[in-house]
Amino acid sequence: MEPALKQALSEAADAVNDQLDQLLPPGEGGAEARLHEAMRYASLDGGKRLRPFLLLSAAELFRVSRSSALRAAAAIEMVHCYSLVHDDLPCMDDDDLRRGRPTCHRKFDEATALLAGDALLTRAFDVLAHPDTHADPAVRCELVRELAGAAGFHGMVAGQMLDLMAGDTPMDMAAVTRLQQLKTGRLIAFSCEAGAILGKAPHQLRHCLRAYAHDLGLAFQITDDLLDVEGSAEEVGKAVGKDEAAGKVTFVSLLGPERARAQAEMLADQAARHLDPFEERAEPLRAVARFVVTRRN
Amino acid sequence: MEPALKQALSEAADAVNDQLDQLLPPGEGGAEARLHEAMRYASLDGGKRLRPFLLLSAAELFRVSRSSALRAAAAIEMVHCYSLVHDDLPCMDDDDLRRGRPTCHRKFDEATALLAGDALLTRAFDVLAHPDTHADPAVRCELVRELAGAAGFHGMVAGQMLDLMAGDTPMDMAAVTRLQQLKTGRLIAFSCEAGAILGKAPHQLRHCLRAYAHDLGLAFQITDDLLDVEGSAEEVGKAVGKDEAAGKVTFVSLLGPERARAQAEMLADQAARHLDPFEERAEPLRAVARFVVTRRN
Repeated sequence: MEPALKQALSEAADAVNDQLDQLLPPGEGGAEARLHEAMRYASLDGGKRLRPFLLLSAAELFRVSRSSALRAAAAIEMVHCYSLVHDDLPCMDDDDLRRGRPTCHRKFDEATALLAGDALLTRAFDVLAHPDTHADPAVRCELVRELAGAAGFHGMVAGQMLDLMAGDTPMDMAAVTRLQQLKTGRLIAFSCEAGAILGKAPHQLRHCLRAYAHDLGLAFQITDDLLDVEGSAEEVGKAVGKDEAAGKVTFVSLLGPERARAQAEMLADQAARHLDPFEERAEPLRAVARFVVTRRN
Repeated sequence: MEPALKQALSEAADAVNDQLDQLLPPGEGGAEARLHEAMRYASLDGGKRLRPFLLLSAAELFRVSRSSALRAAAAIEMVHCYSLVHDDLPCMDDDDLRRGRPTCHRKFDEATALLAGDALLTRAFDVLAHPDTHADPAVRCELVRELAGAAGFHGMVAGQMLDLMAGDTPMDMAAVTRLQQLKTGRLIAFSCEAGAILGKAPHQLRHCLRAYAHDLGLAFQITDDLLDVEGSAEEVGKAVGKDEAAGKVTFVSLLGPERARAQAEMLADQAARHLDPFEERAEPLRAVARFVVTRRN
């Protein structure tokens, strides 16, 4: 990873972690402490915090206050983490390992993981609608609605449903692309657009960010598919080879690894070009585009 | 049930059903139709719609438009139904029957039920934050926050967690009361308060509704415990005798059926008295208080 991006990602991850720490229940005392601990386990100290970084970087383009952007970034990360907790459950992907640690239901139990996911999702909307996130309630409502749209039955949850059925369905490039757009693309796009919403950005610039996020999300997912084929569990931090074992059609199974990699690189280049109107101020977002196709985990 | 209440409940249930029908995805076409069907199965055509009725009745006290109140009522019912779907899952209560029909995961499968619950919860916030729910975005934000508070880690989800652990913990009246306040009381209270929020009611009148909801919620839950002991599955529409089988401490196991019934009736009377400031306009809410302690399902 480029050193400047590495440092920026790391600083953002620390700040988001602190913000999450403040926004989540303390996890001590009271009979429901187990629930609160599971919420913290599932969301603190883990992951690259890519979505929060996208939000923080996009928000900076429009001079959004750091405290507003961090709250929104924490909300997105809560939704991302809830989706991982539910996705890992035995009735879904049945995964034991996540970010190199036991998954939430392995560390606690299924019921606790289910409820911790529910509570993280609920808390995200609470945080977005709170006056501290933005002085203008119309902006807060827009954030709530856009997040719900990205995460709900026409977004991420629909993508999870399609993914579950993917083993049984013949899929072509269009179908795999749509699945990934829903499952991961919509939340990545919201991460970028939320910065524009917070900054009341002009429609045209918001559109540039959406186009960037669209290409970035696909490049990210193609690389994920490549890592599932080429990476080791130790390196990637979760089980690999699962797509093939499940008979799932992926970008790699459709295109082969070489064409898949070329496609991801092409998309990353294209993503970066959508940022031209922001000139050098969008450099962190360009670095992310370069990173997502070269990452090893 | 009193005939006037029966008719009012039935009319409200029909209106909420129509509203839910409009707000949920159509459940046909597209590979994610299964998800959408499960959302509809879990929320349409079932239940007494008690929470929506409370909201609609409270909203009428403050001359809230019917269309605003119906949208908020549908959102609350989505959250209630999501909680039932997740509560019924094998890792939670493992129930096969709900409202006299197979539970969502028995009708579909566990993964689909999990996702349908997630999607219903997400959709509820989307609906509340939409401009059609109220012209003032500050009101919409308050609805989102109050619902998240009632449903989240300091509300319903915490209650579900406590309920899961209830078989292992010695509990007294205070502990059982707190569990029920969280698990069912908070959402019932929000149903009443949401009417006041939509109507920008004076603080004092909002407080009366909260006090009414507090006592009503407890009366409701004590009656639920009584039905679990005294009712038949056919009558109640779900499995009975489950609390005792699970070794759970309930109001009935602590007080015995006679004192429990007397307590429920005392609470229902007290609930009705909190409505005095509204004079005869609160008659539907008073009828609900009389109903919840005499119901057979």
